Amino acid sequence: MHKYQNISSQVIKRLPRYYRFLGELLDRGFTRISSRELSTKMGLTASQIRQDLNCFGGFGQQGYGYAVKSLYNEIGHILGLDHSYSAILIGAGNLGKAVAVHMSFEKRGFKLIGIFDNDKQKIGTMIRDIPVTDLDDLELFCKENKADAAILCIPKEAAPEIVERLHDLGVRNYWNFSHFDISMYYDDIVVENVHLNDSLMILCYRISDTSEATGEE
Amino acid sequence: MHKYQNISSQVIKRLPRYYRFLGELLDRGFTRISSRELSTKMGLTASQIRQDLNCFGGFGQQGYGYAVKSLYNEIGHILGLDHSYSAILIGAGNLGKAVAVHMSFEKRGFKLIGIFDNDKQKIGTMIRDIPVTDLDDLELFCKENKADAAILCIPKEAAPEIVERLHDLGVRNYWNFSHFDISMYYDDIVVENVHLNDSLMILCYRISDTSEATGEE
Repeated sequence: MHKYQNISSQVIKRLPRYYRFLGELLDRGFTRISSRELSTKMGLTASQIRQDLNCFGGFGQQGYGYAVKSLYNEIGHILGLDHSYSAILIGAGNLGKAVAVHMSFEKRGFKLIGIFDNDKQKIGTMIRDIPVTDLDDLELFCKENKADAAILCIPKEAAPEIVERLHDLGVRNYWNFSHFDISMYYDDIVVENVHLNDSLMILCYRISDTSEATGEE
Repeated sequence: MHKYQNISSQVIKRLPRYYRFLGELLDRGFTRISSRELSTKMGLTASQIRQDLNCFGGFGQQGYGYAVKSLYNEIGHILGLDHSYSAILIGAGNLGKAVAVHMSFEKRGFKLIGIFDNDKQKIGTMIRDIPVTDLDDLELFCKENKADAAILCIPKEAAPEIVERLHDLGVRNYWNFSHFDISMYYDDIVVENVHLNDSLMILCYRISDTSEATGEE
């Protein structure tokens, strides 16, 4: 059974934002926050926030607001961040390196256990104390180490073959930076896509919308 | 006046997806697609797609479906991709380099005109035919070159000071990879945030939700 029934994907998408904001409040020493204050900071209505949190059983107390620390921990728990899913990274180019170096995997429910590339120059170099391994050794590695998830920092063209190999090895969860649409080809997997192009196009839309609003061009 | 009134942010967020899917259909030689086929491929309902497109005047013809090429061009136009906004990139680390190298700025309404870093090792090196410039020369550069947008690939700690300088220089549009919440401090700007941590947490949620659904752990 799923932990929570019928939670809309919109609510789920807002959870990391709540988690992020609450984390910042914690860092700044807040212990309590009213739903009104939280809503102002997050640009949502107070009733929206109450509705969202009620999906998971509700946390607030009328008139007392939310206890920041416990709400932060609860949302972290809902997100599953207390797990430690093993992840392997495919592609040690600039993007792969940036992902490996910058992400706090441990705080997000993951542990990075391997990095793979087919570039002989990169194989054997270390990224975040993990040696870059020859992509040819993927099968060997995955037989010795269970990989719960794969992070794909590879070109679109390379993706179909690599995903097929990963799928054959039982990897069912993907953090996908490639432009290959994995879910079109497999229906027994979980994919979270990062579409940087989409984000850039939304910026473009918002700039052009604003420029025309103010008469600039 | 804004180009289109009262378009919900959810609809706007779907536009790049439509654009991406239609681009793939074009690449594969499709000239027409029914709203039913498009909806199956995109995981939306046909009526949702009709509703979305009707916000912009509507494009389909009952029984004939959509002309792929003209819908693709129209959505590109709505997104403002026929603009050429000048953008500067701040931060030439792995992430900045990945963004500079991988993004097709010209196809997304932008032109990358400058790259800045304060690391002496990086200053003077070339990324995508653009020399990395000393961050100290930002003011000089921006007086000679109008920057419509800034791309921030910098640590959270460095962001407040750099954004203040950019804001003083008249830069009002930001593609923000840093964890600094710019919109909390400025209300006359457009910000599109890329929160990779949020995406990773959503993957974690979906894995833990699926594992409990299937009894795995």
